[in-house]
Amino acid sequence: MKFNKVLDNCKIYEAGKPIELVVRDYGVDPKDIIKLASNENPYGTSPKVVEKIANLSKNMFMYPDDSMYELKEALAKKFNLTSENFIIGSGSDQVIDFLVKAKCDENSKILVSKTTFAMYEIYGRQAGATILKTKDDEHNLSQFEELYKKEGADIIFLCLPNNPLGECLDKDEVYKFLAKIDKETLVIVDGAYQEYAKYKDVKKAIDPADLIEHFPNTVYLGTFSKAYALGGMRVGYGIGQINIIKTMYKLRPPFNISTLSLAAAIEALKDEEFVQECIALNFSEMKRYEEYAKKRGFSYIESFTNFITIKFDSDYISSEVAQKLLEKGIIVRDLTGYGLNAIRITIGSREQNTKVFNTLDEVFKDLQKQENI
Amino acid sequence: MKFNKVLDNCKIYEAGKPIELVVRDYGVDPKDIIKLASNENPYGTSPKVVEKIANLSKNMFMYPDDSMYELKEALAKKFNLTSENFIIGSGSDQVIDFLVKAKCDENSKILVSKTTFAMYEIYGRQAGATILKTKDDEHNLSQFEELYKKEGADIIFLCLPNNPLGECLDKDEVYKFLAKIDKETLVIVDGAYQEYAKYKDVKKAIDPADLIEHFPNTVYLGTFSKAYALGGMRVGYGIGQINIIKTMYKLRPPFNISTLSLAAAIEALKDEEFVQECIALNFSEMKRYEEYAKKRGFSYIESFTNFITIKFDSDYISSEVAQKLLEKGIIVRDLTGYGLNAIRITIGSREQNTKVFNTLDEVFKDLQKQENI
Repeated sequence: MKFNKVLDNCKIYEAGKPIELVVRDYGVDPKDIIKLASNENPYGTSPKVVEKIANLSKNMFMYPDDSMYELKEALAKKFNLTSENFIIGSGSDQVIDFLVKAKCDENSKILVSKTTFAMYEIYGRQAGATILKTKDDEHNLSQFEELYKKEGADIIFLCLPNNPLGECLDKDEVYKFLAKIDKETLVIVDGAYQEYAKYKDVKKAIDPADLIEHFPNTVYLGTFSKAYALGGMRVGYGIGQINIIKTMYKLRPPFNISTLSLAAAIEALKDEEFVQECIALNFSEMKRYEEYAKKRGFSYIESFTNFITIKFDSDYISSEVAQKLLEKGIIVRDLTGYGLNAIRITIGSREQNTKVFNTLDEVFKDLQKQENI
Repeated sequence: MKFNKVLDNCKIYEAGKPIELVVRDYGVDPKDIIKLASNENPYGTSPKVVEKIANLSKNMFMYPDDSMYELKEALAKKFNLTSENFIIGSGSDQVIDFLVKAKCDENSKILVSKTTFAMYEIYGRQAGATILKTKDDEHNLSQFEELYKKEGADIIFLCLPNNPLGECLDKDEVYKFLAKIDKETLVIVDGAYQEYAKYKDVKKAIDPADLIEHFPNTVYLGTFSKAYALGGMRVGYGIGQINIIKTMYKLRPPFNISTLSLAAAIEALKDEEFVQECIALNFSEMKRYEEYAKKRGFSYIESFTNFITIKFDSDYISSEVAQKLLEKGIIVRDLTGYGLNAIRITIGSREQNTKVFNTLDEVFKDLQKQENI
């Protein structure tokens, strides 16, 4: 059967390997598997949220409140905006999908950093758009500006901080850049890891209300998957001027958030203390990764997120390191597919990280042995 | 900001009113509200599934197994196919979206029955396609054939049984129709309520394995939202030949099913006994609606689903009946938007239905009074 030609250029997103797969493929006991590949919150979901959802599980037969009244009101309060400024997606992913489909067709251009969240390009290709990439892996606003002046763009994605690398632009430089962008160009500021960035360095903090007020052509994306520890529940949001958000609703499928996901997000917003504790632990544990990399002589990218990207230069091949770790039950993300000889590791709990360091020691020893044979 | 022109023709789906809204708008106590507007299973989710999900709620922070291995294996076993024949969607809705986007652009045509599931048209318009509709409200295959011969179509939707009317074509007539359709036309057989239809009348039963073997240009849709009582969890599936399913994966966003939704669907398949009990109760309760309608002198459409469509002719105006019921805490679906003077009521539990009949009596009395004033 023949399908739409646009599909010929579509790529499939490669998700972090799930624990179930490692159990099936390598026969590792599920208890011994450490998954640090998808930037989940290693401290689990807030116990208050877990308890609430356990009690609500009898509501699964009921369709959710598709107006999402309560969640949008809570977000509006948190961000000092009105509920009309919000659209909720099945992960901020889905909001990206709405925005790309609303703005782009086969004549459109989307400008992104060379190495950034893969879904920008995947949704862009589904819409038939051309993807323009900067030369540098990390966000380089001069390169963005140069390409924009030369080629134009219907959408620009800024990932702040950037996944999968971890770097983050300062708010001031972002605002200076935005001031040079045409009002018909939609700029999407992906703040999936903003909670981490602003904790570490206030200069990175982007306030969505301030952003969309100064730049009505921007949309800010947030998620419950990272700091709010609901990676499995698929809830994200877009914040924008009401006219943009209203248009997005034309593309939102009804009931795009499940009953329990909606309830979990509402509850998670009530336990900000838990979120802040997790973020504090994240950065104290991240220091251990930085020390480990230094000790081993590896370079790494300074991270404003809950993961760290460690580069191997010519000493080791990242895909081999990731594979050896996998066989020992530790799942990390190899970045070979992004053209980098590097791995991205989610910052785990203290105990998990200790095991990662010990296992990495073993892996490097094994790989050196192989080389000597 | 300017957006894609295709959005100008997009409609927004009108969901059944949620209980939360009636509480907010009419101040009715949530305990007293009966929602029979979205064809949820009135007996709730299987207690076994509820218990399992309560125990799994601590897993919310973890991304789901995006391969959906276990669920697809279970479905493959149930339908005597392989897991490669399945794609899982956030409701069968999302599978419709994949299929429409994969097959259609602004030059495409989609053929549907006049009054059928609204999402076919909504997704079709998003893709820029032209929607062709038969003259009759209920599925009329001669009209389908006539329109198809005259206009052609890239996609034909058959809703078996049909939502929101409840009628269902026989398998034999469907197969005869399918034999006349070009192999490049995708025919989507929406079996969201098939579990009900085949219980009531074996002539309505469509076996997905047999369907796609005889007609490789078909895709069968199933859902966990109705008989499997997981309306709030958003899990549906498409069954098709491997080449079609593989292409759909290019449009599937990663992690489109939440961790708890995936687990709930897997568990629900283990409790078929519960499903069959609910279906048996559904049809014994439906008889009461038929009797009530007869007593009142209303016509209704013979239903092979878990809802019934009652028509009012000129005696009453359906929107008024629905509004009066709403004010008394009973939510049903008014079909005025479909051009019908009718309401669609989900068959509730015995207790709920008794209250519906009593409340309807009150409503009709109120409306007659108004008329007399």
